Amino acid sequence: MQITNGCIEALNLALRAVAQPGDTIAVESPTFYGLLQVLESLGLRALEIPTSPQTGISIDALELAIQTYDNIKAVVVVPHLQNPLGSIMPDAHKQRLVQLCETSAITLIEDDTYSELVSETKRGDAPLRAMKSWDTTGNVIYCASLHKILAPGLRLGWMTAGRWQARVEMLKFSQTRSNEELSQRAAADYIASPAYDRHLRRLRSTLLVQRQQTAEAIASHFPAGTRLTVPDGGLSLWVELPQQLSSKQVFDAALQEQILVSPGLMFSNSLRFDPFLRISCGWPVDKEVEHALRRLGQIVRSLLP
Amino acid sequence: MQITNGCIEALNLALRAVAQPGDTIAVESPTFYGLLQVLESLGLRALEIPTSPQTGISIDALELAIQTYDNIKAVVVVPHLQNPLGSIMPDAHKQRLVQLCETSAITLIEDDTYSELVSETKRGDAPLRAMKSWDTTGNVIYCASLHKILAPGLRLGWMTAGRWQARVEMLKFSQTRSNEELSQRAAADYIASPAYDRHLRRLRSTLLVQRQQTAEAIASHFPAGTRLTVPDGGLSLWVELPQQLSSKQVFDAALQEQILVSPGLMFSNSLRFDPFLRISCGWPVDKEVEHALRRLGQIVRSLLP
Repeated sequence: MQITNGCIEALNLALRAVAQPGDTIAVESPTFYGLLQVLESLGLRALEIPTSPQTGISIDALELAIQTYDNIKAVVVVPHLQNPLGSIMPDAHKQRLVQLCETSAITLIEDDTYSELVSETKRGDAPLRAMKSWDTTGNVIYCASLHKILAPGLRLGWMTAGRWQARVEMLKFSQTRSNEELSQRAAADYIASPAYDRHLRRLRSTLLVQRQQTAEAIASHFPAGTRLTVPDGGLSLWVELPQQLSSKQVFDAALQEQILVSPGLMFSNSLRFDPFLRISCGWPVDKEVEHALRRLGQIVRSLLP
Repeated sequence: MQITNGCIEALNLALRAVAQPGDTIAVESPTFYGLLQVLESLGLRALEIPTSPQTGISIDALELAIQTYDNIKAVVVVPHLQNPLGSIMPDAHKQRLVQLCETSAITLIEDDTYSELVSETKRGDAPLRAMKSWDTTGNVIYCASLHKILAPGLRLGWMTAGRWQARVEMLKFSQTRSNEELSQRAAADYIASPAYDRHLRRLRSTLLVQRQQTAEAIASHFPAGTRLTVPDGGLSLWVELPQQLSSKQVFDAALQEQILVSPGLMFSNSLRFDPFLRISCGWPVDKEVEHALRRLGQIVRSLLP
């Protein structure tokens, strides 16, 4: 295992290990804008694969893309609570994806930042299975971090890179040397204690309430035709605006009142997701947040034709 | 200013900001092996410029190289206590180098990791001048860190990137996000206190003693023909072996007895520095170190023809 400066360094190292500038990387669409920025900064091309809010990346579409393009070096997938959709891949899909990547000689980069935020109900009794657990040949690079589940102030991620482990370790040493020890020791002590599990259970139930409250506020304040599905965990909601309204316009107007939302445009190199907004539910819905969501609804309404 | 994970991340970001894979970067010769590894990992070519133990990089040679090769994008220079030579550039050289780089449209990347380790005598009354201080156009990227002077366990470096500042900030965000805050706060408090200056003065006098003791032990135990000049500061000595003996052989034999030295080969992509050893003097010369230096001298002697 390699400790990294957050999951973002793990993704950088994974991509640098398997691809050269000019190569193509398949990504979910919509996808986390930070990944698109990493790809651009490394001179890599993003190939966007349709992704479902229910079951995650379309494996059929990926298979077609692999047959069509011959320079896809890797695919980056968030199997649990995909960002921004919140989808959770069924185990059968995960297994099929691992096999497809293996037979196609394409590296599967698994970004598992959010699995601990999947709701208690959805988790059930069996632990969530990482795609890496089906990997028998070292073709899956697994990346995760404590950033979203323990403390945003910590920059602690980790990765296990299968057959690229030695190259990843060389690149990590060359890029930033090893991580500082103090925060690793503090986090390790905490994770080993019963307090960590208690923290995670409390965090999941807090987020469940916040997701529901935020969704209810949106239902109350946004105009008819607004659509959203509350995901089975996580920190945000993916909201479709009515009548193909541009989220860019909503973003600009909201920012003037210091209300921050993520416009759908950011989650793709295309304009496809312009009518979507990602709204965070990382805070309790207090009066201020309730007010902001009400104003946001009014802004959306005012922009309707 | 941008805080980084040590000077090594600052160098990575500086190089990524100004060069593309395939570009050429001029470096001192011999140079820090870590820099050669960074260049290789980024797909950059190293062009080695002769460097003097007294005055640092040869500006005449660099000027010739610039006239000869048309794809040199940057030059990386350690002006104070060059690693491994220990040279300190005279101010007139620094100023001339800044001007040459500016007129040649080549970025000057200044690695100032060691300036606080220059001895009290050499420092004199005026503070050492960074090359960046002559930069009027933003063509110098200044990089430094606390790693060698405060605590090796901290990964705290920083850089100021002149006209590449915005690009460096984007790359830093994309590569590792911001550094953790805790160690920055702790270091900032300490640096602002009088204890920091006391620490630096004590460190300089300790290192002065250790350099002298190490040099004396080498003079006693190594065979005739061994050459070294004690530098005006820093953590290591650059030792030339007698009769062009290969340091690789010395390294291999010493390692078997758990004595670690850096063979000259590591400091160049050529074989030019094979007859040199870099010997650390970062520890007090106690019985164990004295014994190791004596054994090292015996090994060198045994390898002589």
